[in-house]
Amino acid sequence: MNAAKKIMQRIETLARITDEPGRLTRTFASPAMRRANGLVAKWMRAAGMETRVDAMGNLIGHFEAKSEDGKKPSSILHPSSSPRLLLGSHLDTVRNAGKFDGPLGVMLGIACVGELRRKKTQLPFAIEVVGFADEEGVRYQSAYLGSKVLAGSFDAKELRRKDAAGIALAAAIKIFGGNPEKLKSARLDPKNLLGYLEAHIEQGPVLEGKNLAVGIVTAIAGQTRAHVTFIGHAGHAGTTPMARRQDALCAAAEFILATEKLARKTPGLVATVGQLKAEPGASNVIPGEVKLTLDLRHAKDSIRRSAHLALKKNAFQIAHRRKLKIDGEVVHETAAVACSEKLSGLLALSVRRHQKKVLRLPSGAGHDAAIMAGITPAVMLFIRCKNGISHHPNESAKAEDVRVALGVMSDFILRLAKAHE
Amino acid sequence: MNAAKKIMQRIETLARITDEPGRLTRTFASPAMRRANGLVAKWMRAAGMETRVDAMGNLIGHFEAKSEDGKKPSSILHPSSSPRLLLGSHLDTVRNAGKFDGPLGVMLGIACVGELRRKKTQLPFAIEVVGFADEEGVRYQSAYLGSKVLAGSFDAKELRRKDAAGIALAAAIKIFGGNPEKLKSARLDPKNLLGYLEAHIEQGPVLEGKNLAVGIVTAIAGQTRAHVTFIGHAGHAGTTPMARRQDALCAAAEFILATEKLARKTPGLVATVGQLKAEPGASNVIPGEVKLTLDLRHAKDSIRRSAHLALKKNAFQIAHRRKLKIDGEVVHETAAVACSEKLSGLLALSVRRHQKKVLRLPSGAGHDAAIMAGITPAVMLFIRCKNGISHHPNESAKAEDVRVALGVMSDFILRLAKAHE
Repeated sequence: MNAAKKIMQRIETLARITDEPGRLTRTFASPAMRRANGLVAKWMRAAGMETRVDAMGNLIGHFEAKSEDGKKPSSILHPSSSPRLLLGSHLDTVRNAGKFDGPLGVMLGIACVGELRRKKTQLPFAIEVVGFADEEGVRYQSAYLGSKVLAGSFDAKELRRKDAAGIALAAAIKIFGGNPEKLKSARLDPKNLLGYLEAHIEQGPVLEGKNLAVGIVTAIAGQTRAHVTFIGHAGHAGTTPMARRQDALCAAAEFILATEKLARKTPGLVATVGQLKAEPGASNVIPGEVKLTLDLRHAKDSIRRSAHLALKKNAFQIAHRRKLKIDGEVVHETAAVACSEKLSGLLALSVRRHQKKVLRLPSGAGHDAAIMAGITPAVMLFIRCKNGISHHPNESAKAEDVRVALGVMSDFILRLAKAHE
Repeated sequence: MNAAKKIMQRIETLARITDEPGRLTRTFASPAMRRANGLVAKWMRAAGMETRVDAMGNLIGHFEAKSEDGKKPSSILHPSSSPRLLLGSHLDTVRNAGKFDGPLGVMLGIACVGELRRKKTQLPFAIEVVGFADEEGVRYQSAYLGSKVLAGSFDAKELRRKDAAGIALAAAIKIFGGNPEKLKSARLDPKNLLGYLEAHIEQGPVLEGKNLAVGIVTAIAGQTRAHVTFIGHAGHAGTTPMARRQDALCAAAEFILATEKLARKTPGLVATVGQLKAEPGASNVIPGEVKLTLDLRHAKDSIRRSAHLALKKNAFQIAHRRKLKIDGEVVHETAAVACSEKLSGLLALSVRRHQKKVLRLPSGAGHDAAIMAGITPAVMLFIRCKNGISHHPNESAKAEDVRVALGVMSDFILRLAKAHE
């Protein structure tokens, strides 16, 4: 069986490891995650890796492609200080997830190692494949718990977070077999790291639209998430003349269209009003209050910040003109993270060997690579996904595209080896 | 104590008769409604009326101002076939209601009779004051149950309706002491009726805006209530470029503003989107589907119908342009009901005696008068309400305005008597 088909088969197998019968949901430190770690570790070992699960529950496979001195390769239990390249992605999922978001990157990493071993390729560095324990943040409403521990940016305060059942994060780590007191020791030493390559489905329609199997991520977009409330005056839908209304939903409608208009005319900007609640919410009552969410993303922080300012000003103007009150707050803000230019340049050479065109695109979604970029040069390879659908059971990628991705990644590793020598 | 103050006091007393402790809720055939009927009947008798509760639970006070032949006035139990003028409104309320919506009209009717009796005024017709058992339709989700029985437009199928506790309307009528099989006999004979005058708070801000105590209703607006659904495509807020979106909420926003614009430029039209639900409703997901309600009202059916057609066309255009699907249905439609021109003309003469200006305005809300107009000329007097607020504990009217309303109504009765002679 060829390697891409094997990856597809493993992704199907992993998709059956779930915390919820009938649909794929695999959250941090859950029973399904334990089974997934066990199975993936088996695949890692079959590819020639030694495996460990760190204090957070991240699964790491270590592959020593060549011993420095011709002796037996250093054991994972006594790792050499030789430099290493990280490959990986996450093994947790959202609720009712697709099969590819996360696992595809881990399976591709294992397959790369399998190829190196099969071809007896000697490398001047080790490879570690990481299956992060939490990227989606479903269970503790805080994303990137896995990569934050490896990158040393995990905040111990998070340990007090509780899940829906009231179990603290610290307790969940212990139950899973980890050690909440040793998270610091799980941090990877940046001076041993050559970089981090994450393969991931695009979760968008761009590659499909350009008819390309893979693309190179330029940056992981920064994000502003805000809540906006328009406060008008509820009133009887039959007895309040139009001229006397302070309709919060009409104000919100203006704001939604202004947001769309700005994003349409600003290249690379995406802006979304995803949640809207109109109160009191009766067909015969004028909406007196509307709460909505605004999600703004761009690969350049300055553009995102100007857009946010412009929309804020616009919201105030709408409220003022309509004699409404307005309230708003930024609830979440992350800066854009640029991918390593050097590694992306190398990856571009590899892509060019496998595909007619090298497309560079920003990632609108967050990824572990954004966290890993804090300690090592990070680079991402996007794989085309069907209809741009993600976080849904219909999420899908083609074996043929996975084959291209595997070829690109294997080529990249060889180029990095050459550059390293 | 003057009559207006007495009305205000009685309204306060009635407001304490409720099915829900701490707030005013008095629904059809409930224990609170029984107590309210009992108390109002006492007030009716104190004003010189004989009282009965009909088979539906409507409370009716009969006042024979003058016997045709100088003998003892005909008893309510053997009513003369002499013509009669109906005054009234409803005694039921919405949940967490204001005090004035309904009771004010009944109290004004009783006060008119009290004045006639005090002044020993002789009239060539009887007066009946009606406290309708159900106008709001809270308990059985079907409005005007009381006036429909008196007007003979009640549909016996309604008897099968069940309330939230599973009690059928027929059973509720029986428990209350009525007779679901004798509802037809409760119908008033149109040939004995001179007309129906209902006083009611405006439930809107028009009179307050014009600084007037009362106004005359030209018509009760017709209404179209529709559901509209825009069906686009949900997608990741970070990874879906603006040009590739089918955002159902942006389409809905366009429709909301188009609706507002049309209503603003069409005199007398009110149009409201009161309910809106955006799915899936996550801040980081493009809304794939939006359901909303449309409420259109106008005193002229032709204008309301053209507005509805124009908005329907507009919704289709928006959906087509944005490549969305659209679905819609009219869930409720009522024709406008014109008030009697003759009685309104008479009422205008009375208003002119008490107030600097006669303002005629349509009623955007429905009233028992719309049903009574089916069997007798109906006319309505609106009383200014504070900030246009209704269906809310803050609903309020001034004693001074109630005094004006009482003067207008008493004057109207005398004018009608003169016209009748």
